[in-house]
Amino acid sequence: MTDTIRISVDAMGGDNGPRIAIHGARLALRERKNTSFIFHGPQPILAPLLEEFAELKPVSTIKHCEVVIAMDEKPSQALRKGKNTSSMWNALQSVKDGEADVAVSGGNTGALMAMATFCLRPIEGISRPAIAAIWPTMRSDIVVLDVGATIGGDARQLVDFSILGAALARALFDQDKPTIGLLNIGTEEVKGLDSIKEAGKILAAASGSGFTYHGFVEGDDLGKGTVDVIVTEGFTGNIALKTAEGTARQVGWYLRQALSANWMSKLGALFATSALRALRRKMDPRTVNGGVFLGLNGIVIKSHGGTDEIGYKSALGLAYEMARSRLIDKIGEGMKQFPISAVPSIPTPEPEAKPA
Amino acid sequence: MTDTIRISVDAMGGDNGPRIAIHGARLALRERKNTSFIFHGPQPILAPLLEEFAELKPVSTIKHCEVVIAMDEKPSQALRKGKNTSSMWNALQSVKDGEADVAVSGGNTGALMAMATFCLRPIEGISRPAIAAIWPTMRSDIVVLDVGATIGGDARQLVDFSILGAALARALFDQDKPTIGLLNIGTEEVKGLDSIKEAGKILAAASGSGFTYHGFVEGDDLGKGTVDVIVTEGFTGNIALKTAEGTARQVGWYLRQALSANWMSKLGALFATSALRALRRKMDPRTVNGGVFLGLNGIVIKSHGGTDEIGYKSALGLAYEMARSRLIDKIGEGMKQFPISAVPSIPTPEPEAKPA
Repeated sequence: MTDTIRISVDAMGGDNGPRIAIHGARLALRERKNTSFIFHGPQPILAPLLEEFAELKPVSTIKHCEVVIAMDEKPSQALRKGKNTSSMWNALQSVKDGEADVAVSGGNTGALMAMATFCLRPIEGISRPAIAAIWPTMRSDIVVLDVGATIGGDARQLVDFSILGAALARALFDQDKPTIGLLNIGTEEVKGLDSIKEAGKILAAASGSGFTYHGFVEGDDLGKGTVDVIVTEGFTGNIALKTAEGTARQVGWYLRQALSANWMSKLGALFATSALRALRRKMDPRTVNGGVFLGLNGIVIKSHGGTDEIGYKSALGLAYEMARSRLIDKIGEGMKQFPISAVPSIPTPEPEAKPA
Repeated sequence: MTDTIRISVDAMGGDNGPRIAIHGARLALRERKNTSFIFHGPQPILAPLLEEFAELKPVSTIKHCEVVIAMDEKPSQALRKGKNTSSMWNALQSVKDGEADVAVSGGNTGALMAMATFCLRPIEGISRPAIAAIWPTMRSDIVVLDVGATIGGDARQLVDFSILGAALARALFDQDKPTIGLLNIGTEEVKGLDSIKEAGKILAAASGSGFTYHGFVEGDDLGKGTVDVIVTEGFTGNIALKTAEGTARQVGWYLRQALSANWMSKLGALFATSALRALRRKMDPRTVNGGVFLGLNGIVIKSHGGTDEIGYKSALGLAYEMARSRLIDKIGEGMKQFPISAVPSIPTPEPEAKPA
């Protein structure tokens, strides 16, 4: 890696077209000068956009390709159609070939994960990759994973996620031994899924080797920021992520309603304009845009498909920071400190149903 | 059932002692005159409290018992120790014996569910009871279940929950055919757990018989109020519930911070005092206190263990409304409209792990 961070961009991924990606890169470059970009997509579409954002031209390359993966394409379809040919695949290939330090795409998550797994391959010793979210809390940002790459998972997988999440926390927050909690429906040792209880035992025994195991945490610990890393399988993680986003919007809506109730409250809102603007910025989902794919031999950042150039800029900023802080090396160090390959795979089929 | 709604109260359940329950009943009586109470617990403790809240005395009976179930007792322990003897059990027994129309407890959820299942028995044709939450949304209140009675669940169980949730929505919102959504990680038919996909097919085929099947919904549809009833198994439902509660607190905290940032914002908050107070009331978790146990031959309301008299009053109000709107009859009608006993049990073991 050179001093310049080289970002490979799937310019065609996302709901809102390639203009968002290129405009976002223009904004990202303003914040971090030592960045260069490789944009993957059809030359006739991308070249005029680069002309428009001229400041970007000296640090950008276009790599032409025709195939674009649709937002509703199934992972298997996308792989069949897009391997070696699509802007999504090629963005990943640039990382694999060492042309870029990190790849960014706003394309469909399932397809991107399938392609990234196929192209970059899982790190040896990690059973499955995960998607991590940077989660704002009352204390500070924390790491939450998996938020959508997997469905279900055994104890071994939750332990893998813990190692990966701890490495990401070390890279992001410059922490030596981030605290880890397993998301559960109670903090007592007897509660919850067998897979979680089993993972808790393994993590408790290994606590101190690259992380500090805190124990079980509950849904409200996400907002509190009780620990640095919260680990769960992807189904629950995705539901929690979207529930939190939805609740934040709901409360914001209540607030707007309350402040427009009468002339006194409207006057109050006027006086508090700058404070409320700061609050809106803090709660703007675009400022925390970007899921980090963890567990692959290369860094991939997933931007929200429906974001705009501001959101895309955030995803590119996250990509830059992940490359700069040598995330992959940090994962390697973490795996050396706690050799999970020594942990046997413990299949814990979910019970059909049992009392909480 | 007479015109008066008779509420059986486990006066000893909860973190904050029996005073909360009795004070809460005093407040509830003020709102709904035609209520009577049976308080279960030690006579020497409860009698002086009834003296204190004298208005309550003419409509109240104390049923003495010595045994109290602790908040941290395991369900199996609680059953062994408390069957036929504890305030929790006796509160349920009053419903079974027809002395009361509904039971309320702030005791520990696992123990209460175990006892309620043992004492009142599941409705014939329902595989497992569930806990439903009344969830405030941007549209109106909705029903969400299960939020903690079960862990995991097959398609049949999700269909059962749908029938139960629809009956509760009919009882609460006076709706003919409430809309039902299955909580999933995507709205496409191909995504998510097999159990959910299978349940979706059954509900789609039965749509119109007591409910309208909407399809899959995601975590952010909870806050939006996209449908009247959102169905999920208890692990995910509990995580979603606590994540939403935590996020609401988090945003409230952000707001307080923003409004105390400088003198302008403080002045603004002063002008908006009444609006902000209304907002605080709206977001007060005590106003929506009470989980409804569904699927048993009797109505049971679980109050939050850590609430105060205001919260307890809400739980008693919910109990009153559930009894008044003949919830159990509504469930019976729903089961006649859609004879789920005709639906075969479809065991769908969760996959060990597969891509989203």
